[in-house]
Parts: sequence; structure tokens; C-alpha cells
Amino acid sequence: MSIQRTARDARHRLRQDEIIVAARRCFRQHGFHAASMAQLASEAQLSVGQIYRYFTNKDAIIEEIVKRIVDSRVHEMLATSSNVHLCELLAWRQMQNSDDEALMMEVAAEATRNPRIAKMMADADERMFRHACEKASRMHPGFSAERIHASVEIIAVLVDGTSYRRLTPQKASPERLYTLYQHINDLLFKTEES
Amino acid sequence: MSIQRTARDARHRLRQDEIIVAARRCFRQHGFHAASMAQLASEAQLSVGQIYRYFTNKDAIIEEIVKRIVDSRVHEMLATSSNVHLCELLAWRQMQNSDDEALMMEVAAEATRNPRIAKMMADADERMFRHACEKASRMHPGFSAERIHASVEIIAVLVDGTSYRRLTPQKASPERLYTLYQHINDLLFKTEES
Repeated sequence: MSIQRTARDARHRLRQDEIIVAARRCFRQHGFHAASMAQLASEAQLSVGQIYRYFTNKDAIIEEIVKRIVDSRVHEMLATSSNVHLCELLAWRQMQNSDDEALMMEVAAEATRNPRIAKMMADADERMFRHACEKASRMHPGFSAERIHASVEIIAVLVDGTSYRRLTPQKASPERLYTLYQHINDLLFKTEES
Repeated sequence: MSIQRTARDARHRLRQDEIIVAARRCFRQHGFHAASMAQLASEAQLSVGQIYRYFTNKDAIIEEIVKRIVDSRVHEMLATSSNVHLCELLAWRQMQNSDDEALMMEVAAEATRNPRIAKMMADADERMFRHACEKASRMHPGFSAERIHASVEIIAVLVDGTSYRRLTPQKASPERLYTLYQHINDLLFKTEES
């Protein structure tokens, strides 16, 4: 690859990153549905025409944002070695990046009316779920695929439910929740198949 | 109360109901943030001025929608006598009214940028949580308030997480999930305090 080509590619990626940063800010402020390509271009200090050189439409920008959020979540999930950490996250609600969470809430709201966004959300969940099951299978080789799926699904419900509930004040004692979450984790991953 | 007054009140309630129905449709289609009072009036086949006679602004309409959703959820929760039903709802994702759920997702997305909507959501959750704790206390008089709060919080996480995950395809076997949810329910409500 020529030096010129490499420099051009780097410039392209940098510009793409700038658009994503501006779009995230814009979507957080106005919502996906209300934010226009014109607002987005203005936020990125680019012309609408320039934006279209990088993304064919607003949905393509949302797709790239979701892709990056899922990449970082998969990375984080694979990096943590135990579920003790997970019980802590759930009980103290020390969840993921709160800006990412708000954007995913936006994706969820939009998914209820836009089939393309619903498809994006389904693909993202599929990818996250697959990685989580692979990890759980490696840690619990004796478990059947069915049991792994069910246990991972319940963990996903707990993680997504906690993200949602973080929007309202915590009403239970985190210490007490921690103990209960540890019991639930044992139930999901330490008990025999039943 | 005079017959005239009664008739006027009934007309007022009827008109208010019509506005709520139109607003729900409008919000579902465009999102809270994008839907304008003008669109809403057109959907309800009223003038903007007429809408303002019933609701001071868009937030007041959202508040009434949220109030009605919570009323119906509290009613439903108090009507079901056992948690077996709950485990079924979770496992088979036979959740509440899916239109209500989509609107609450919209509320959640809007709550991340609008403090008044966040306050509304917090009040709604507070009310729901209080009723759930009172019911759980009646069913488990030996449990401490702290334990009731923690168990109810985990049920709320499971319910909200399942609502959220209903937006993507189910990947685990409902029968297997049902068994696990029953064990979790026993853990939350049948085991001694620990």
C-alpha cells in the first residue's frame, strides 16, 4: 500500500470518527427520529454532502454507532474473568458507559417503529448473545447448549433490566442485592441440570 | 351536582380520552421529541387551542399517558394472586400491553435528556414499587422490609429486562427458562433471610 493511500485511509477513518462523535451528541440531544442530517452536519462542522460521502443515510450512521457499542461491550465481557464482577455491577448498578446506554435506549424506542432499526438491534443482540454463550460454554463445559442459552438469557435480562432501572432511583440495599445476585448466579451456573 | 354539570364533566372526560388516544398514536409514530402539538391536534381532529384547554403542554399529556399505564399495571399486579403466573410471563415473554411497553421505552429514551420526564418516570416507578412491596409484605409477613425491597427490585429488573429483550428474538427455551425462573422466585421469596 502506498504512503499516499495509507494517509488517505487514515484521514477517512478520522473524518468518520468525527461524524460518529457529532452524531452521538446530536442523537442524544434530539433523539434519532427528530435529528436531521442537516443538524448532524452542522454539529460535525461539515456540509450535508460531505456526510453522504461517508454514510449513505442516517440509518447507516446509527448502524455504525450500534456496531461500535457492541464491539466495546463484547470486548469488556470477554475481558472479565468471573461473574463476581457481574454481581457487583448489577447490585451497585455500576453499569456500562451511560452515554452508550442512553443511545441503546434510543435504538430500542426507534426499533418499535422502524423495522430496519429493529433488525439492527436483533443483529447486535445476536452477536452479543453468541459471544456470551461461547464464553459460558468454555467456563462450564459440562452444561448442555440449551442450559447455557437459558442461563445466558437470564443474565442478559438482568443486565438489560438493570440498565433500564438505572433511570430511576435505587430503592433496595446494594449489599442485599449482591447476596441475592450471587445466589442467582450459583443457581444459573453451579447447579446441576434439572 | 346538577345534571348539566354532570354532562359537562362526562364530555370533558370523553374529550380528554380522545386526546390521549390520538397522542399515543402520534408518539408511537414519531416519538415524543419529534411529535408536535400541531401534529397531535391534527391526529385528534381538534385545533391546537382546543388541546390546550385540556392539557397545558406536551409534557402534561405524556404525564397522563404514563399515569394511566401505571394505573393499569398496578391493577394487574394486585389482581394476580401468585408468582407462578409471573414466571410464565417472563419465560414466554407474554408481557403487558405491547403498545404500553413501546410508549414506556419512549419515556425512558426521553428521560435521558429531559429532567421533567425523568421525574415522571421516577414517580411512576416509585408508585409501582411501593404497591409491589406492600403486596409482597402481605404474602411474606416474616420478611424484613429490606429483604422485601431487594426481592421486589430483582423482580422489577426481570420484568423490565424482559420487556426490553422482547424487542429481539427469543434465543432460549421458554420451558427451561420457566424452571430457572421458578428457582429464582423460590430463592427470592421462600428462602430464609441470609
